[in-house]
Amino acid sequence: MKKNQSTRLTKQHKKSHGVVGIFGKEAIQHDADVSKNSHIVKELLEREFPMLTFRYRKEISKKEINAYLQKIDKYFGQTLFVENASIRPDGGIIEVKDDNDNWRVVVVSEAKHQGKDIENIRKGELVGKNKDQDIMAAGNAIERAYKNISEIANFMLLEPYFPYILFLEGSNFLTHDITIERPDGRKVTLTYNAGNLNRLDRLTASNYGMPINTNLCENKFVSSNGLNVMLQATSIYTQESGERWNSKDMIEIMMEVARTSLKMIGKDIFKQITEFNKK
Amino acid sequence: MKKNQSTRLTKQHKKSHGVVGIFGKEAIQHDADVSKNSHIVKELLEREFPMLTFRYRKEISKKEINAYLQKIDKYFGQTLFVENASIRPDGGIIEVKDDNDNWRVVVVSEAKHQGKDIENIRKGELVGKNKDQDIMAAGNAIERAYKNISEIANFMLLEPYFPYILFLEGSNFLTHDITIERPDGRKVTLTYNAGNLNRLDRLTASNYGMPINTNLCENKFVSSNGLNVMLQATSIYTQESGERWNSKDMIEIMMEVARTSLKMIGKDIFKQITEFNKK
Repeated sequence: MKKNQSTRLTKQHKKSHGVVGIFGKEAIQHDADVSKNSHIVKELLEREFPMLTFRYRKEISKKEINAYLQKIDKYFGQTLFVENASIRPDGGIIEVKDDNDNWRVVVVSEAKHQGKDIENIRKGELVGKNKDQDIMAAGNAIERAYKNISEIANFMLLEPYFPYILFLEGSNFLTHDITIERPDGRKVTLTYNAGNLNRLDRLTASNYGMPINTNLCENKFVSSNGLNVMLQATSIYTQESGERWNSKDMIEIMMEVARTSLKMIGKDIFKQITEFNKK
Repeated sequence: MKKNQSTRLTKQHKKSHGVVGIFGKEAIQHDADVSKNSHIVKELLEREFPMLTFRYRKEISKKEINAYLQKIDKYFGQTLFVENASIRPDGGIIEVKDDNDNWRVVVVSEAKHQGKDIENIRKGELVGKNKDQDIMAAGNAIERAYKNISEIANFMLLEPYFPYILFLEGSNFLTHDITIERPDGRKVTLTYNAGNLNRLDRLTASNYGMPINTNLCENKFVSSNGLNVMLQATSIYTQESGERWNSKDMIEIMMEVARTSLKMIGKDIFKQITEFNKK
């Protein structure tokens, strides 16, 4: 029965071009909330992989991360100052149960908006101390993104994959110039690589300067002088022209990263996959 | 001649209990500016290791970090949005020239102050929206510290050591309770592990939960399932009771980490060290 359902859903999924078909064009286009989309991704994963069990969590406690680190080495994960400290990436965490009943991370997502210049110019609002500038000097708050990235990286320290997605939007994350018209007709150009506007460089240490808008879920390995280093890289996706994210794109990226995660732990979910196929 | 000078300085250094003797008690006790102290550390290193050449830099360009990453793998270090982007840890970067004329990082430092509760209580100033609280809910700006840590970690991706020091002070980084008296005599206790006060947990992903106030310059290695992972951990030092850092302590910590760095690249500065000894 389960298999029939799966076949039917897979067919439906293909026929209707995936995400849109299942959830309806309306429902997904007007809501790019990363947490809601993450819940949808969990449902889509359950349909695509009905033999596997998934769960969604909105947070991981620092205690749990410490416990994971302690298992690797007693010297790690020793410190905890605030008892109930926890990590809450805004898109939450999707996990899958492996053949040994361990939960494995499949996708973690955060969405960040920084830079309201496009909205301000469209409204004709000048900014700055004297309200005489078109463009607001960019801030540095985005640098906080590294904290959750580092925490989840530690929680997956010995996994060969890192399914962390950072969705960016706003005028501080453009990858080419755009021109916006004010209500009075004057046109303002946002120069994507201006030092007071662009903040993408503040994030690229998290992907070792590899291309953005790329699925970097599978870890890279480098070695030199007898040292082997495994690199966990964040998959950074940006809205290049300052648009808002739409749910369809967000969900498709999350699905792609989730599939990579499942492939990377293929040997640990092999039993569930193959036994299902025999049914 | 060089050796005589060195011997004299070493003797003077020992006789006068190091840092204090050379720079005078006055000069160093009233100034815990991490950048000035870093300059002093460079001078002390030059005296302790007169056979080596050191330099101080206040920034590393993103271009240089990219070039380093590109040498490891062409797929890394590809992206640069703002041409002159650079990394500026507030204590700067001290480097040493190795036997192959390459500059190697010896110590990188940042000092962060977060939480003014102690000062506010001492002044008798109430805080918050309605100016009726003793304690201000702690912010999250400290999480930005990870950005520079990640950049320098990438710049030292294949080095077996990571000499990054984070000096913390302020009421958000206490490790035990303290009681402070207001001008009106009322005493206020700061509970170090309160969720609205302590922000140490926001930083400990950068040292894998290893102890704070510890020199973690030498990298750790862990392995499992055929994976070898090298860990670059930040050495986090905090003022446990909310004092300000004094220069003597700061300088001694930086010297200890710098000595570890030099030891870790011992084989690459071996020629300079041994040829000097033969003179």
